[in-house]
Amino acid sequence: MTQATSTNEIVVLEDGSITLPKGYKAGGMHCGIKRKRLDLGYIVSEIPAVAAGVYTTNIFQAAPLLVTQDSIAKENKIQAILVNSGNANACTGEQGLLDAYEMQKGFASELSIQDHLVGVTSTGVIGELLPMGKIKTGIKQILQKECESEENFKQAILTTDTCIKQIGVQINIDGKTVSIGGAAKGSGMIHPNMATMLGFVTTDANIAHDDLLFALREVTNTTFNMITVDGDTSTNDMVLVMANGLAENNQLTKDHPEWDVFKQGLKIVCESLAKKIARDGEGATKLIEVQVDGAFSLNAASAVGKSIISSNLVKTAIYGTDPNWGRIVTAAGYSGVPIEPNLLKVSLGQYKVFENGLPSPFVEEEVKGYLENENVVIHVELNQGDYSATAWGCDLTYDYVKINASYRT
Amino acid sequence: MTQATSTNEIVVLEDGSITLPKGYKAGGMHCGIKRKRLDLGYIVSEIPAVAAGVYTTNIFQAAPLLVTQDSIAKENKIQAILVNSGNANACTGEQGLLDAYEMQKGFASELSIQDHLVGVTSTGVIGELLPMGKIKTGIKQILQKECESEENFKQAILTTDTCIKQIGVQINIDGKTVSIGGAAKGSGMIHPNMATMLGFVTTDANIAHDDLLFALREVTNTTFNMITVDGDTSTNDMVLVMANGLAENNQLTKDHPEWDVFKQGLKIVCESLAKKIARDGEGATKLIEVQVDGAFSLNAASAVGKSIISSNLVKTAIYGTDPNWGRIVTAAGYSGVPIEPNLLKVSLGQYKVFENGLPSPFVEEEVKGYLENENVVIHVELNQGDYSATAWGCDLTYDYVKINASYRT
Repeated sequence: MTQATSTNEIVVLEDGSITLPKGYKAGGMHCGIKRKRLDLGYIVSEIPAVAAGVYTTNIFQAAPLLVTQDSIAKENKIQAILVNSGNANACTGEQGLLDAYEMQKGFASELSIQDHLVGVTSTGVIGELLPMGKIKTGIKQILQKECESEENFKQAILTTDTCIKQIGVQINIDGKTVSIGGAAKGSGMIHPNMATMLGFVTTDANIAHDDLLFALREVTNTTFNMITVDGDTSTNDMVLVMANGLAENNQLTKDHPEWDVFKQGLKIVCESLAKKIARDGEGATKLIEVQVDGAFSLNAASAVGKSIISSNLVKTAIYGTDPNWGRIVTAAGYSGVPIEPNLLKVSLGQYKVFENGLPSPFVEEEVKGYLENENVVIHVELNQGDYSATAWGCDLTYDYVKINASYRT
Repeated sequence: MTQATSTNEIVVLEDGSITLPKGYKAGGMHCGIKRKRLDLGYIVSEIPAVAAGVYTTNIFQAAPLLVTQDSIAKENKIQAILVNSGNANACTGEQGLLDAYEMQKGFASELSIQDHLVGVTSTGVIGELLPMGKIKTGIKQILQKECESEENFKQAILTTDTCIKQIGVQINIDGKTVSIGGAAKGSGMIHPNMATMLGFVTTDANIAHDDLLFALREVTNTTFNMITVDGDTSTNDMVLVMANGLAENNQLTKDHPEWDVFKQGLKIVCESLAKKIARDGEGATKLIEVQVDGAFSLNAASAVGKSIISSNLVKTAIYGTDPNWGRIVTAAGYSGVPIEPNLLKVSLGQYKVFENGLPSPFVEEEVKGYLENENVVIHVELNQGDYSATAWGCDLTYDYVKINASYRT
């Protein structure tokens, strides 16, 4: 594997993931929640790692999220993460909470570490109690050598995702190679439903908790929080970062001269995972990227981008390779941002379609041809300031309706 | 036609519309903007009528909206409305504004009234200039007897609506029969498109402008503003009310003893039109009604209702007759309202599916059977206060994707 050699070089490893950083192992197995596929996975660090998380803003936070937040709060560290798929342990009341604590306790016992050093998370069907017998049996077996495999972990967290999502980067901090790796699952619809996003990021960087949390929040705002599949925020969404310090760099803080390099590396990991989730949205055939420039504030740029990427009309137009600037302009117009129609410019790829409040002449066939690409870029220039934002999403297709209308029938 | 006989009786006339109130005539014709169907319509009052309007919040307000707002502001009255379909005169710059004023002037001249007494509005394709030659020729002919027809008007305002939308009510104010009638067009997709809602309400009530505007805004908030087809707010959305006073009741103000009866009548008209628009959303097979009770404020009740009715996951589930309470609970959970999961109760029709933070047992086949109805009611009890709200929408179907993805191809 290539290593980063100079301070400003960031090496991106498409086949890198959560065991790229030093001192991590991962594994996965089939414990019986799902019919056949892997459904239980873990990440373990050799030593306790500084931990930070961001969690769904949905009022209905699932039980494992409550347990994980509570546990991280104890000393801002975890050493392991246990994930099951096939059952979200959401809307399961008091028993769900007891089950999440029991999962945590069982895995901590196998690892001979304190309970609060284990983060737990679940994804899958909501409103059903976890099959604790199967999970407890699984926990007793999962640390066996034959389950140890990063590939198994990446598989075990999936629901109806059509592919695994992973990425790794390496940077140079204080002359040491620091690695950051990630794995994620996206928005597959689960019986009886809902899209859940889980992201797991590991690093061997030496970094203080507050700074890690600060960096994660900042990066999440421009990556995971800028994707949409259908606008539905799940009860189980969560991104967790572990930093075990084994790269032996001087502790990273906001004052460290290479702080920005670390943040940039973290951003590359989160952005890559976020885009892979968007591209693999239910029924999607394309990744849509909306680039907004010239906003008078960052919030304004984000709001315009999110408004466009969330529009069903824009999403169906892109599916139908329709250069439908009217829908883009309309979505910008109801974003709540006081944009100036006469300053607005909209392009699809290299093709300008709207400028100065009026449609621009374009050759329909050329732009249709561009929209047949698997990656489509909508560029919006507001000409009101210097702020930019990018949002990602996917097209809205017959298969989206099929997947979501007929799942239980 | 039945007449209202006592103060508190409100007679609803499903076949009533804009010429039900005294002193109004309407008409429509084919002037050539569309290929074959009627595309130019008018409403005229015998005398100038007090007027009030509510307009799209989209930054890109189409030219006719600007002209109509400006004209009503002159003396809070209009005597006529001219509507064309097939071309929205939106994103048409300075020339679009000149064209809207020319439409107004032309029709005012035919009627021999002042320009500012004519409201103009357009719906259809955006980004193209109006074919003013055809419209001017139409304006010269449209007042001829053979065009006069309420039915023609209701047809002339449609785009890809599958049916006309109308309603009338009669109430008793000061012993006089007061009529309120309405016609609307809904959200059909237009090349290059967008969903536009236009509502026209006429009444022979005698009412002051400020009070009419107050009533319209209040009623709009609980009717037209509580429907969604796909969450996209068009450049041309507008609701106009004319009140010509020919019923000869004492002038209605908020202090009039029968003020509430008038407001109730206006609400019935607006709610009926709003529901008809929702039911006729692109590709829809069902009307979905979300009733929210027990909120701690009116805004909270509305926010929860709108969040649920706007969820693609809820809309596809209803299409697929899937009793998918998880998606409803999730949408309530991300509405931004601090609801209390353990107090929440959700029913589909008479079937309770969620209570006290947990799913309720139900017979799947029974609830699926209920969801096969053309009108589906989702009831949400928040148990946090005394406020209620109702929102309306439609299911999300293959045909929605088809209509919107393949319009131009």
